[in-house]
Amino acid sequence: MDCKCSNFHEIIIFALMIIQKEIRLSHHSYGVHLITEEITRQLSRFPKDGILHLFIKHTSAGLTINENADPSVRHDFEQFFDYLVPEAWSGYTHTMEGSDDMPAHIKSSLFGSSVSVPITDGQLNLGTWQGIYLGEFRKRGSQRQVVATIYS
Amino acid sequence: MDCKCSNFHEIIIFALMIIQKEIRLSHHSYGVHLITEEITRQLSRFPKDGILHLFIKHTSAGLTINENADPSVRHDFEQFFDYLVPEAWSGYTHTMEGSDDMPAHIKSSLFGSSVSVPITDGQLNLGTWQGIYLGEFRKRGSQRQVVATIYS
Amino acid sequence: MDCKCSNFHEIIIFALMIIQKEIRLSHHSYGVHLITEEITRQLSRFPKDGILHLFIKHTSAGLTINENADPSVRHDFEQFFDYLVPEAWSGYTHTMEGSDDMPAHIKSSLFGSSVSVPITDGQLNLGTWQGIYLGEFRKRGSQRQVVATIYS
Repeated sequence: MDCKCSNFHEIIIFALMIIQKEIRLSHHSYGVHLITEEITRQLSRFPKDGILHLFIKHTSAGLTINENADPSVRHDFEQFFDYLVPEAWSGYTHTMEGSDDMPAHIKSSLFGSSVSVPITDGQLNLGTWQGIYLGEFRKRGSQRQVVATIYS
Repeated sequence: MDCKCSNFHEIIIFALMIIQKEIRLSHHSYGVHLITEEITRQLSRFPKDGILHLFIKHTSAGLTINENADPSVRHDFEQFFDYLVPEAWSGYTHTMEGSDDMPAHIKSSLFGSSVSVPITDGQLNLGTWQGIYLGEFRKRGSQRQVVATIYS
Repeated sequence: MDCKCSNFHEIIIFALMIIQKEIRLSHHSYGVHLITEEITRQLSRFPKDGILHLFIKHTSAGLTINENADPSVRHDFEQFFDYLVPEAWSGYTHTMEGSDDMPAHIKSSLFGSSVSVPITDGQLNLGTWQGIYLGEFRKRGSQRQVVATIYS
């Protein structure tokens, strides 16, 4: 029996690919930062359709999606998270690594360690006002490592 | 050398597909709403196995998975989130868009902008008591836009 | 026209696979537990590159990624979440299933129902200090069901 090349072709256009890249973010100070461009600059091009999955390899920093326009939103995020998860809470027992460490772990889980964003027509399909936030929850920040995985 | 068609066939049955659809939700009032059926109604059929990824394109609304049976759970979610992220908190500086705006941004990140649910045997593999929640955190709600991406 | 076998081969190595397995966790007491090994032990092997997606089929337990070394972090998570979402809050109306039930629903959404972790070179690409946490938010715990989906 002959090989039905045209059939194969039809199927193969649906075959998916995974592209993975580990990104080292620049140094960010304590607080909440918009990193959409820092991320996309390092990902040369997006496929037609798919998902971008970002995963931060740390437990005292987190990722979320929020407002991309007014810096006062990031300012208020930082302040409100300090109010919500106070350093001065008397119940912490994990205090050896500094008074900002245990609050940083908790904030990290409130944000989450990953975000995933649809890719549509070769671009991140974010809403008009959406951007990718890094929450840097340690006072002496470091350069955070993010794994980007693209499904297409 | 000949083309080994049977081998190709064996591999191709694993080839994946991405289906993407943008859904406009109906208008929902301030609070927490069960939208499982509103979402699945718009997705004609599910593949055998995969993941459904839902992404909301807004920063003052969010998605989460929670209890699908008793409306009092959604009622208490709304009330508790108003207590947890109070409009009256004195620290907000981003107040130009109304007193519910900055709390809505924070609640949106506490919920998250996406949920992903396994698809098994052609159906959402939710637990018995699980449903998909929309958190509408603005008092004058709007019709929210959700991108559904299915991997199969 | 002939079938271009070599071309097909080149494409097919990118074809993806979905592997799905439902895992019943062992019984965990109220609190926050490291379950990385309990999960990976049940997943015989990982593909070269991909994502592991874990979804918990319950609304009073959650999954998150956090510190894997010092048990005091898990202890403080439990204590802080009890402070953040107090059982004694007077506003709950959903109280029929016990005073820990509505707080459990809220904590479950603060953690989230799923985590997704990149797989790189055949291993979970977690940071040095990262592990997978189960939040068991009910006082009479049960054996929780998790759906593991691997994209490769």
